[in-house]
Amino acid sequence: MPFSDRILMGPGPCNPYPEVMAAFARPVLGHLDPEFVALLDETNERLRRVFRTANQLTFPVSATGSAGMEASFVNVVRPGDDVVIGVNGVFGGRMCDVAARAGANVHRVDVEWGKAIDPQQLLDAHPSPRIIAVVHAETSTGVRNDVAELGANKGDALLLVDCVTSLGGIPLEIDEWGIDLAYSGTQKCLGVPPGLAPLTVSPRAIERIVETPQSWYLDLNMIKKYVTGEGARAYHHTAPISMVYALHAGLGVILEEGLEQSWARHAECGALLQEGLQNLGFELFAQEGHRLPELTTVVVPTDLPAGLDEAAVRRRLLERYGIEVGGGLGAYAGKVWRIGCMGHTARPRNVTLLLGALAEILQR
Amino acid sequence: MPFSDRILMGPGPCNPYPEVMAAFARPVLGHLDPEFVALLDETNERLRRVFRTANQLTFPVSATGSAGMEASFVNVVRPGDDVVIGVNGVFGGRMCDVAARAGANVHRVDVEWGKAIDPQQLLDAHPSPRIIAVVHAETSTGVRNDVAELGANKGDALLLVDCVTSLGGIPLEIDEWGIDLAYSGTQKCLGVPPGLAPLTVSPRAIERIVETPQSWYLDLNMIKKYVTGEGARAYHHTAPISMVYALHAGLGVILEEGLEQSWARHAECGALLQEGLQNLGFELFAQEGHRLPELTTVVVPTDLPAGLDEAAVRRRLLERYGIEVGGGLGAYAGKVWRIGCMGHTARPRNVTLLLGALAEILQR
Repeated sequence: MPFSDRILMGPGPCNPYPEVMAAFARPVLGHLDPEFVALLDETNERLRRVFRTANQLTFPVSATGSAGMEASFVNVVRPGDDVVIGVNGVFGGRMCDVAARAGANVHRVDVEWGKAIDPQQLLDAHPSPRIIAVVHAETSTGVRNDVAELGANKGDALLLVDCVTSLGGIPLEIDEWGIDLAYSGTQKCLGVPPGLAPLTVSPRAIERIVETPQSWYLDLNMIKKYVTGEGARAYHHTAPISMVYALHAGLGVILEEGLEQSWARHAECGALLQEGLQNLGFELFAQEGHRLPELTTVVVPTDLPAGLDEAAVRRRLLERYGIEVGGGLGAYAGKVWRIGCMGHTARPRNVTLLLGALAEILQR
Repeated sequence: MPFSDRILMGPGPCNPYPEVMAAFARPVLGHLDPEFVALLDETNERLRRVFRTANQLTFPVSATGSAGMEASFVNVVRPGDDVVIGVNGVFGGRMCDVAARAGANVHRVDVEWGKAIDPQQLLDAHPSPRIIAVVHAETSTGVRNDVAELGANKGDALLLVDCVTSLGGIPLEIDEWGIDLAYSGTQKCLGVPPGLAPLTVSPRAIERIVETPQSWYLDLNMIKKYVTGEGARAYHHTAPISMVYALHAGLGVILEEGLEQSWARHAECGALLQEGLQNLGFELFAQEGHRLPELTTVVVPTDLPAGLDEAAVRRRLLERYGIEVGGGLGAYAGKVWRIGCMGHTARPRNVTLLLGALAEILQR
């Protein structure tokens, strides 16, 4: 089968940076090889710079983003703990599911999809929760939820934030905003294929790690002995060597460009895309003022040309132009498109191409 | 930092097949792209051929081998279930930990490290266990445990087998031996870097999957809708695209060579190595008749040349020859070496090189 090279403008994965693809060619080393351990240390240091944190326990979980979510909850939730979770999309809902399986008493704060969550609503949801959790960038709706106010007023709670689609793409300040647990994915604004979940854990959260988390694979008590070299480099599980190479390279690209410049590039592409879509007569789905530049949701027009439905437009984009965009999730399946502009995909030329392709297909 | 290219003769990772490294260069596709879904389907079909099974639910878990272990237990263990586990090394012990965290009532059958477990001991351990679990190839000791007799006499129990270091390297017959749940890792005899855990689940085991496993990430009720296309290709989590490419390629190499030929190549290299080591005066650690060809354990000699200790020999191998071998685990740290000959590493030339290097270092 020939290889297709798509322009990946869905909700992730994005196109990886060329340097990342080159890194896959690095010879595989053992997970206890001094050279690999040094590279992992450097990867974790790069993650600290991109997360804007001094947290020693910062490393890529050996699985995809959702495992980062699970690691964040199962290590600190005790049965019966009160956990407040904001839900304005799929990933807030997923947090409730994951927290409940860890035995949490979940206090769910639902907000209409497409709208941002008012931090005060989360702060008011329970007088003394163990955890307050929210999604920074909702991949299902393209909405940014504000986080800083939660950190400033969290009291004794731990603040747990899903940064899957925000890390590297929009301003995120783990330490300044008082975030205790945050996880991300490699395949969004970091410009790396999917496979790892960068995670960072504050000293305050480390103190509250339960003795025996229900997950062995995600047990931070054990993993931190390997990733921080505490005592010795105790073997826990075999690190996914080649994916760590890829992440190391992707973080290198971002830091060489400059993290703020990466944010600015995502902001520029998002603005170009959102303005261009509106000029073509499209209606944006996410609340103004809380639109993510890296993930734009647009309402599927009701006046599609004869013979075309929502899925047919995406199929035409894929087959004629080699462009992937995403459909809606949940109640919004068939009603919105999700257009990503993340990582190496976040280039003006891709915005120009997509707008041109949409104009041709929709005859606008 | 320059790249070092090691000969990976530790307990894994092994050196990947060249075709696997080439596969990493494939352009990244979205996890719902029809071309990726077709490649995943083909990967799963290849896995069925290598596992020797017709199990529809056969796919790579999106994490490393130990997550395959966790997925196997958490999906079928109910709190209080009686689970018999054979332990003659680290990985049997790990099974007990994982099963206990899922609420199992663990009946642990301990056997001296280096010796094989008599299947009858496991069958006698409990009159009606929910699960009987054993490690097929103990990576910590180099011992093969017999499995077929367990399947023939398991009664109502599910038979759960760790095939991390056996799959592709020694005969393994999932269906013929009556194995209900089996997991492996990519970085051993499949010749692929670490990062995925091939898993196969029998229809009998599927019927016993609990309604809400404690792990969301490893929840087979949800994952099977994506991997088998049951209903629609429902999104669960983003598949690790590039690692799936790598596994697809590694399985392709094995099937083109022929699975039996892959077993024979591992057998030949193991025999050459074990004979060569004994000719050099080394004592093998694992019980005769149950020695794995793909992982040889050898007792560290007490008469090392002046100035050399166990770790110094491994360091010399690494620094002068670029060869990685493994040290012992647990009580055998410092007392045995673990020498892998797996995947692309399983070539006579690597055996010749290692024996030559050991002879030089140890002046034999």
